[in-house]
Amino acid sequence: MQNYRSLEPFFSPKSVAVIGASNQAGSVGYTIFKNLKAALPFHAYPINPNHATVQGIRSYTSINGVEEKIDLAVIVTPAHIVPTALQECAQKKVRAAIIVSAGFSEVGEKNYTAQIRRIIAANPHMRVMGPNCVGVKNLSTGIDTTFFDQGRMKEPRHGSLSFISQSGALGSMILDWVSKQHFGINKFVSYGNAMDVDEADLLEYFAQDKSTKVITAYLEGARDGRKFFDVAKMATLKKPVIVLKGGRFEKTSRATASHTGSLAGSEKVYEAVFRQSGIIQARGMQDLFNTGKLFERENLPKGRRVAIITNGGGFGIVMADHVINNGMELADLSAKTKKNLEKKLKVSIGNPIDLLGDADAQRYDAAIKACLLDPNVDILVVMCLFTLSPLRAQEMKILEKPRGKKQKTMVVVAVGGDYTEQQLEKIEKSGFTAYDFPGTAAKALGHAAEYSEFLKRSRN
Amino acid sequence: MQNYRSLEPFFSPKSVAVIGASNQAGSVGYTIFKNLKAALPFHAYPINPNHATVQGIRSYTSINGVEEKIDLAVIVTPAHIVPTALQECAQKKVRAAIIVSAGFSEVGEKNYTAQIRRIIAANPHMRVMGPNCVGVKNLSTGIDTTFFDQGRMKEPRHGSLSFISQSGALGSMILDWVSKQHFGINKFVSYGNAMDVDEADLLEYFAQDKSTKVITAYLEGARDGRKFFDVAKMATLKKPVIVLKGGRFEKTSRATASHTGSLAGSEKVYEAVFRQSGIIQARGMQDLFNTGKLFERENLPKGRRVAIITNGGGFGIVMADHVINNGMELADLSAKTKKNLEKKLKVSIGNPIDLLGDADAQRYDAAIKACLLDPNVDILVVMCLFTLSPLRAQEMKILEKPRGKKQKTMVVVAVGGDYTEQQLEKIEKSGFTAYDFPGTAAKALGHAAEYSEFLKRSRN
Repeated sequence: MQNYRSLEPFFSPKSVAVIGASNQAGSVGYTIFKNLKAALPFHAYPINPNHATVQGIRSYTSINGVEEKIDLAVIVTPAHIVPTALQECAQKKVRAAIIVSAGFSEVGEKNYTAQIRRIIAANPHMRVMGPNCVGVKNLSTGIDTTFFDQGRMKEPRHGSLSFISQSGALGSMILDWVSKQHFGINKFVSYGNAMDVDEADLLEYFAQDKSTKVITAYLEGARDGRKFFDVAKMATLKKPVIVLKGGRFEKTSRATASHTGSLAGSEKVYEAVFRQSGIIQARGMQDLFNTGKLFERENLPKGRRVAIITNGGGFGIVMADHVINNGMELADLSAKTKKNLEKKLKVSIGNPIDLLGDADAQRYDAAIKACLLDPNVDILVVMCLFTLSPLRAQEMKILEKPRGKKQKTMVVVAVGGDYTEQQLEKIEKSGFTAYDFPGTAAKALGHAAEYSEFLKRSRN
Repeated sequence: MQNYRSLEPFFSPKSVAVIGASNQAGSVGYTIFKNLKAALPFHAYPINPNHATVQGIRSYTSINGVEEKIDLAVIVTPAHIVPTALQECAQKKVRAAIIVSAGFSEVGEKNYTAQIRRIIAANPHMRVMGPNCVGVKNLSTGIDTTFFDQGRMKEPRHGSLSFISQSGALGSMILDWVSKQHFGINKFVSYGNAMDVDEADLLEYFAQDKSTKVITAYLEGARDGRKFFDVAKMATLKKPVIVLKGGRFEKTSRATASHTGSLAGSEKVYEAVFRQSGIIQARGMQDLFNTGKLFERENLPKGRRVAIITNGGGFGIVMADHVINNGMELADLSAKTKKNLEKKLKVSIGNPIDLLGDADAQRYDAAIKACLLDPNVDILVVMCLFTLSPLRAQEMKILEKPRGKKQKTMVVVAVGGDYTEQQLEKIEKSGFTAYDFPGTAAKALGHAAEYSEFLKRSRN
């Protein structure tokens, strides 16, 4: 818990100072201070010796001039001022400092880098994030040190998925993409050069963070391989951890040799570490967040037996192929389910359950209900063909019922244009999880089934 | 060419009769006749003995009552009337008949099925599509026997990609999805029970059809495995053929045993047939059409050497991983390109070429131009991070230039929300091909590189 407590001020500070807060609209020091003073329910202090006020608020020459205790300092000064600013933060007994400024080891600079390293070593009470980072965004408390352009990006919804990104730019794209999706972000962090706080520290923090249900990460390497492996083994037992590893091949991995004990870029080493520690390895950006969404919204499946309901034969077969290809199996429906549905629907029941092209919402409701009750089914996939069909999402009674905490994993899949998108929108608003292609749904479900079996093995 | 000529009346008839044309709005016989009479530049004849007029047009008791020669008859009557209607078409010397009506071998019916089989055998001058099919849609001539609900579906653009779908429902979803995409359909055909015209006939037709540049197909099996293999070997030398095989596994393949000589459902058999005949096997619906789009819009790459341009380091690395994972390689840029770009851009040039986060359109233009001229580059991937960047698509000069017929394969990739989507829209409108995730782009490019090498091997 040591690590958890020491990182807490990054995400939930009671007071913040921005060293290098600026009056120049568009600059990083301007945007960060503007966002913080607007978002926080308390005073945010601008530190800038060149101005009496910053954005209308009294400015201080040094952080030591502030009387109140400061939990978090955000440093956005030019690189050569950073060591002095960080030293003053240590004197002020600041608990957490984010160095947003760039121009250090990432460009081969040595002098200021060494000074920062010495200050970090001499002040273990102060945790330091960066340099060269975008920092943190906590959608619960409103703390936000990112300097994203609001004209080009939208805010994601508030939810329970947290995201650690080695790359601030990649993180920004994902947050923006999530703004159009029906699932939410809890916290985001981009930690830059990792001179103190690294990926393992953050993974440990999110594992213990109660408001985070799912951890996602984009990583290019681990600064300390052993530490990362140990933390990962602990974290995956508490909640799903999905990682997209960038630089999987020798030719694509950036030099990590400068860090002692760093994990090599070899694909096989990472695959083994991820598998042994229960980390879910995403196969791309789309897979990372389609899988994250499933965990954020759905209960964990008890196994890998999948029932498919469809109103298009070929559509069901395509899904069945993906199910098998992603390591799941087609459920053998119980005799009771079959008998019950054959009587009600007057069609022969297999799996996929083909409700035929003229199926209406009532037929869907009956089939979904039967599958949710069937002990042979772990996962339910509801395929909806809206183009050549009388089916309307708003007529499905199942969508009006609140999802139970123990209800089976269930997703809806529909492919099409505008009308289909509107129907999916209705379905997701009702609290159900939808995907726009069979393949993306199956990948996410495959990851969930695998994680479920990992937990069973680990807990036995 | 025999087969080509005999199928032409399905796609470009000079006269059409709809047997079972109806006055009842919403019925299949109503919709098909309504679409045909509105779309065709000549008379479409309604055949219905129960009404003097259908939709305001004089109706005929039998197709034999029509004086004009009829190229295409579309039969939408109840199943028990179909044999008589088809026999009358044969007498009238109709060249092509589409039996939309269902209720035959697909539900185990034997009597009418046998009668239809006899009529087909006795009248080789008349080609028959169906029964139980959606029929054809030709965006060049306006011929359309599909009965898609216009409220639920939108028309795709007119282009050069043709699509053969064993499943009418799956076909309708894809056409609807394409309506939102920046590429176009030339012809669509869903051929149902394939009592006469089958997948191999259609593949042969599209291989010879001049307005089709790319052939895509959703198939669950081939009625005659040997014939399909032979036609496929011929077709793939003329243009790319991309197939999504439904029922890849024993547990997901529908019985095809009723057809003599049909290919078994085994995944390995199909994989081998596809590989040997040069068919590109799509891994899902998304892959089928993302790959189709690439072939429709871009020139075929000369090889598998990829240059990546990016303004986000991590974003470039993710793409590089996908490039290698999809069987391509990172190009070794020529010394000239490196020197030229290092001088112009003042950054160190690797591959990915990282233009850094503050890159503007001018920097992109310079890098794209250099890569297009580099003899070591076959494929160019332009990654655009719009969220944390000053980059604006409308300022890129390259987008104003017409694409040459010999220009290298080039795609743009950007991930994000609304702003990014608007930028991608601009890029696609300029004639460039864009993808919203690195993984989907890389899969399509990998297929193109593989097809290019297949052609080289086959032509040597």
